[in-house]
Amino acid sequence: MKIGIFGYGNLGRGVEKAVLKNNDTELVGIFTRRDPSSISTLTGAPVYSANEVEKFKDIIDVMILCGGSATDLVHQSPSLVSLFHIVDSFDTHAKIPEHFATVNAIAKESGKIGIISCGWDPGMFSLARVYSEAILPDGTDYTFWGPGVSQGHSDAIRRIEGVLDARQYTVPVPSSVELAKSGSRPTLTTREKHTRDCYVVAKEGADLKKIEKEIKEMPNYFADYDTTVTFVSMEELKEKHASLPHGGVVIRSGITSEGNNQTIEYRLNLDSNPEFTGSVLLACARAATRLAAEGVKGAKTILDLPPSALSPKSPEELRAHSL
Amino acid sequence: MKIGIFGYGNLGRGVEKAVLKNNDTELVGIFTRRDPSSISTLTGAPVYSANEVEKFKDIIDVMILCGGSATDLVHQSPSLVSLFHIVDSFDTHAKIPEHFATVNAIAKESGKIGIISCGWDPGMFSLARVYSEAILPDGTDYTFWGPGVSQGHSDAIRRIEGVLDARQYTVPVPSSVELAKSGSRPTLTTREKHTRDCYVVAKEGADLKKIEKEIKEMPNYFADYDTTVTFVSMEELKEKHASLPHGGVVIRSGITSEGNNQTIEYRLNLDSNPEFTGSVLLACARAATRLAAEGVKGAKTILDLPPSALSPKSPEELRAHSL
Repeated sequence: MKIGIFGYGNLGRGVEKAVLKNNDTELVGIFTRRDPSSISTLTGAPVYSANEVEKFKDIIDVMILCGGSATDLVHQSPSLVSLFHIVDSFDTHAKIPEHFATVNAIAKESGKIGIISCGWDPGMFSLARVYSEAILPDGTDYTFWGPGVSQGHSDAIRRIEGVLDARQYTVPVPSSVELAKSGSRPTLTTREKHTRDCYVVAKEGADLKKIEKEIKEMPNYFADYDTTVTFVSMEELKEKHASLPHGGVVIRSGITSEGNNQTIEYRLNLDSNPEFTGSVLLACARAATRLAAEGVKGAKTILDLPPSALSPKSPEELRAHSL
Repeated sequence: MKIGIFGYGNLGRGVEKAVLKNNDTELVGIFTRRDPSSISTLTGAPVYSANEVEKFKDIIDVMILCGGSATDLVHQSPSLVSLFHIVDSFDTHAKIPEHFATVNAIAKESGKIGIISCGWDPGMFSLARVYSEAILPDGTDYTFWGPGVSQGHSDAIRRIEGVLDARQYTVPVPSSVELAKSGSRPTLTTREKHTRDCYVVAKEGADLKKIEKEIKEMPNYFADYDTTVTFVSMEELKEKHASLPHGGVVIRSGITSEGNNQTIEYRLNLDSNPEFTGSVLLACARAATRLAAEGVKGAKTILDLPPSALSPKSPEELRAHSL
């Protein structure tokens, strides 16, 4: 399958690396809104201006969109699905129905498939929730994120006056994870589920106490959590906090009859969040080509894709060796 | 949806309990080869002779087959899929392609759907393997079973002369599970992965040393494992080893680029193996009715079913709340 990457940040590079691991895949080009000549790619794949994308209408099977949800995907997904099958990682949970409807209308018209909201949450974690709830209707779901870097929370700290750079780790509270698995089906508050660890580089002479207070009291982001703030040098941040690990666990604890607890746990432990997300997007791109070959069009999510469609193996091979 | 249960052992009772937890489901009847009047059901559901099943052709939507693979399902699945959509838990891995082909041919003719090999392995564990491999092609799979009761191994011990009853627990070796998750992608031998713990009730005067030796040296079942044998009284077996817990974990450890390990873990911790399996079968029965409404016919496995088809919720609800 011939793919394009639209947007070349961390996620775009993650998809590029995933192409190297999937030998049924050819990367035709990377599309950017920056000056293409300013970009050197990891694999030497050609870089084109985003304005040129229409020329690739008959060359690229699936365009994988690697922009952010808020300002990029809301526009890019509807626009590009008029030309290509697309896969995106739209992750503003509350706006998924609206995004789905927009992409669906255009994709039905263009005869393309638009698989939205792929990745791990939404994505693999959504799958874990839906399968588990279907099997254990009398149960309770728990999703814990981390330990891992939250880009949104790191950005929120960076916007505080006097802050040069920051990295925020979301950390599940181990005793709460154990409690969720215990079968007691506890109600856990936001504060009980996660703590937030912040590593902050301040400008010289900045008021550290004030920065710490502003972080800890920031509504939505930190106020409801037990937050620790550690000031570090720029060198230390770059040395010790450069990578983007993440992960988490989805737990469903339910009963099938009085006294018979059943627990399902789906856990990810990721050294690189963007590379893992990129790998999920690539597997979904494969599913897009499979469904397209059957005449399917319109918007889909990972919940609509037969699992076998994500695999490079044939259904016969899967039944013989993986079932 | 109106379902029937064909076969009323542990698994049949598990499906019956699952019906109580799924309010979109009605249990029309339980079918048995025994004398129906000799059976009292957990829920008061009516019991019919297996010979009467054809009368229910237009009444039951999905027949859930609860017999064993070796002697029951090989015949019953092809026979019943000529009358109903069916779901079975055929678990002889090596014979799945053959079973699929047989059921597929008859189902295509009758216009029905036959979902074979549902449960947790094959079933949910197969899903974990297929999704994980599609996302992390450069990786290694590990499946650990237990701690839990293996019916096949318990039966094998019961066939030994001098044994009255037995219960065999399959136990994953904790250090090997940790190693599988470590990212080092070890090659683990059969002996390194699981131990086998046997609780055996011997006849009075039986040669215990001989029984222990026969168990430990039994080819395929025990010879390749570190096995412990504990002789207990019938009372102790009934008191402490009456339930059928099981579970296990599927791990995929892979890399997306040099040095970036990614680990996916799917874990089940089940107080009751047959009740959990029954719950999976019921969710698959729902998928059968959904696919049938779209005109699908023929044999399927859980790898072919869109995840949303297993859920009682609509795709819109799932996108809004579970994605």
